[in-house]
Amino acid sequence: MSPTRKKLIIDTDPGIDDAMAILTAMNSEEVEVIGLTTVFGNVYTDTATKNAFKILEVAGKSQIPVAEGAHDTFAGIKKDWVPDFVHGDDGFGNMNFPEVQGVKYPGSAADFLIETVAGQPGEVVVLALGPLTNVALAMQKDPAFAENVGELVILGGAFFVNGNVNPATEANFFGDPEAADFVLSQPAKTRIVGLDITHSCTFTGPELTGLHGKGRFGTFLSSITAFYLKYHRDSYDMDAVYVHDPAALAVVLRPSLFTWRTGQIRVLTESVARGMSVMDTGLKRWNRPHAWTDRPRVQVAVAVNAKAVTEMLLQRMAL
Amino acid sequence: MSPTRKKLIIDTDPGIDDAMAILTAMNSEEVEVIGLTTVFGNVYTDTATKNAFKILEVAGKSQIPVAEGAHDTFAGIKKDWVPDFVHGDDGFGNMNFPEVQGVKYPGSAADFLIETVAGQPGEVVVLALGPLTNVALAMQKDPAFAENVGELVILGGAFFVNGNVNPATEANFFGDPEAADFVLSQPAKTRIVGLDITHSCTFTGPELTGLHGKGRFGTFLSSITAFYLKYHRDSYDMDAVYVHDPAALAVVLRPSLFTWRTGQIRVLTESVARGMSVMDTGLKRWNRPHAWTDRPRVQVAVAVNAKAVTEMLLQRMAL
Repeated sequence: MSPTRKKLIIDTDPGIDDAMAILTAMNSEEVEVIGLTTVFGNVYTDTATKNAFKILEVAGKSQIPVAEGAHDTFAGIKKDWVPDFVHGDDGFGNMNFPEVQGVKYPGSAADFLIETVAGQPGEVVVLALGPLTNVALAMQKDPAFAENVGELVILGGAFFVNGNVNPATEANFFGDPEAADFVLSQPAKTRIVGLDITHSCTFTGPELTGLHGKGRFGTFLSSITAFYLKYHRDSYDMDAVYVHDPAALAVVLRPSLFTWRTGQIRVLTESVARGMSVMDTGLKRWNRPHAWTDRPRVQVAVAVNAKAVTEMLLQRMAL
Repeated sequence: MSPTRKKLIIDTDPGIDDAMAILTAMNSEEVEVIGLTTVFGNVYTDTATKNAFKILEVAGKSQIPVAEGAHDTFAGIKKDWVPDFVHGDDGFGNMNFPEVQGVKYPGSAADFLIETVAGQPGEVVVLALGPLTNVALAMQKDPAFAENVGELVILGGAFFVNGNVNPATEANFFGDPEAADFVLSQPAKTRIVGLDITHSCTFTGPELTGLHGKGRFGTFLSSITAFYLKYHRDSYDMDAVYVHDPAALAVVLRPSLFTWRTGQIRVLTESVARGMSVMDTGLKRWNRPHAWTDRPRVQVAVAVNAKAVTEMLLQRMAL
């Protein structure tokens, strides 16, 4: 194993595109997956944990720890809804796989994040593919966490495009706006990829069916993505799927395939646009202080070499 | 006078770029200005009214009626702040011109709008260059107003770019978010031009000073724009000004110079992004109803032939 491999914790709500991202990470030399932490979002948290065990079984990596995360939002709101029309009731396109037995890490996802990062400050990348509840809890519980994390890569937000839950709001930030707004107030080294980018990153229907029989994971991925493809046909009139979570993994693997702009972000916690992300791009020297003033600057992806990203991802899913 | 001239009421908060727009309208064959209605925004309403009389004096059109509008917002909030660093205390770059005596229309701006439009249904264009308070009041008081107005052209909003009051919010919608959200719930034939467009429409410092001595209004316009230019140099590091209000007039004059997309809009009345405009561009068939559902569709400018717009405007200001 290369000594330069990045140590990676994936915070995840699997979820079809989560499975695509995690299995792609397993086929990527650049990273070593050292843990999965689970959260609600595409599914409820207990389903996310079951699915994390299933993905590790498919990968032949059942030794990787799984820490179950929050069941309620950062503000204590109980989740009472998941988008079953996107990922199916089971999070895997209603494939209803037999349940895999696994032993959860004896602590919360936030505890796992804190302990792992504290043990090797600056060395661990956290890839957050769901609502930011666990990351926010880790930052709240351990004020050193934000400084100690090597990099925080977030899939979330819709900056200068429409959302996917409603015209304002992207699903992950919609899932826990208070967590997202808090995380983006903290001094972690942060990169964000939102719908501005992931709506350029697609796999076609034939590419998905073409995975069948390929490599170690192709048949599994092809089977679970059929339901996800139908959702995209119905909602976007296209024979293709957005590969949101894999595109965020691509940031960890090859950040140079994206164009970055630094800015300060607020995530709205009120109004009909609750969960919306608004970034100050720095065009103007402001005349008066406002709610973005004094926020830390983070890196936001504003453009992507989508062909290179999707080719890399598709090739690795077929290994 | 051409029988095809559009009858135009300009709702305005003059304001330097308001003066540019109104005087350009006076030099435009396509329109006949039949009234000015005033509102707070760049200045307080009483100053806006004084400045409307001054503009009409400069134009030699003191017979055009001026109806003074609201002093408080649609939700009844008293205005206690104006951007004096943009337009000066007097709204004309601190030129402190002697006050022009004028007789106000004996009714509110909303009354003038209602009566004028009702007298010639479908014939009158309203160009709204400030916060939408007067238009909202007219729509509220006369349910037929929205149907009777020939077209409503609004300068306001920042759809897929940053605002100019803060990263979320453009000044006119910031000035009265409740009015803007209400107006955009009504069935008027509506076109909107926001910062997405006007930040492409600029006059350079030399173009502004070059107006001195040109035509009927050039010296006046050159004198009041010096202060406005200094604000842009300080805030945007550019030797040029945005011609927001004149660009909105250009929509009335030549809508084909803009690219239009139809969509539904909400203006946020809560959160740190109060006043932000969010448009559904129609990418997605939504899975659940949301706050945009059932809103009327309006035309939003998404691109502009900026060279053609600014050349037309500059040429007419020098006539």
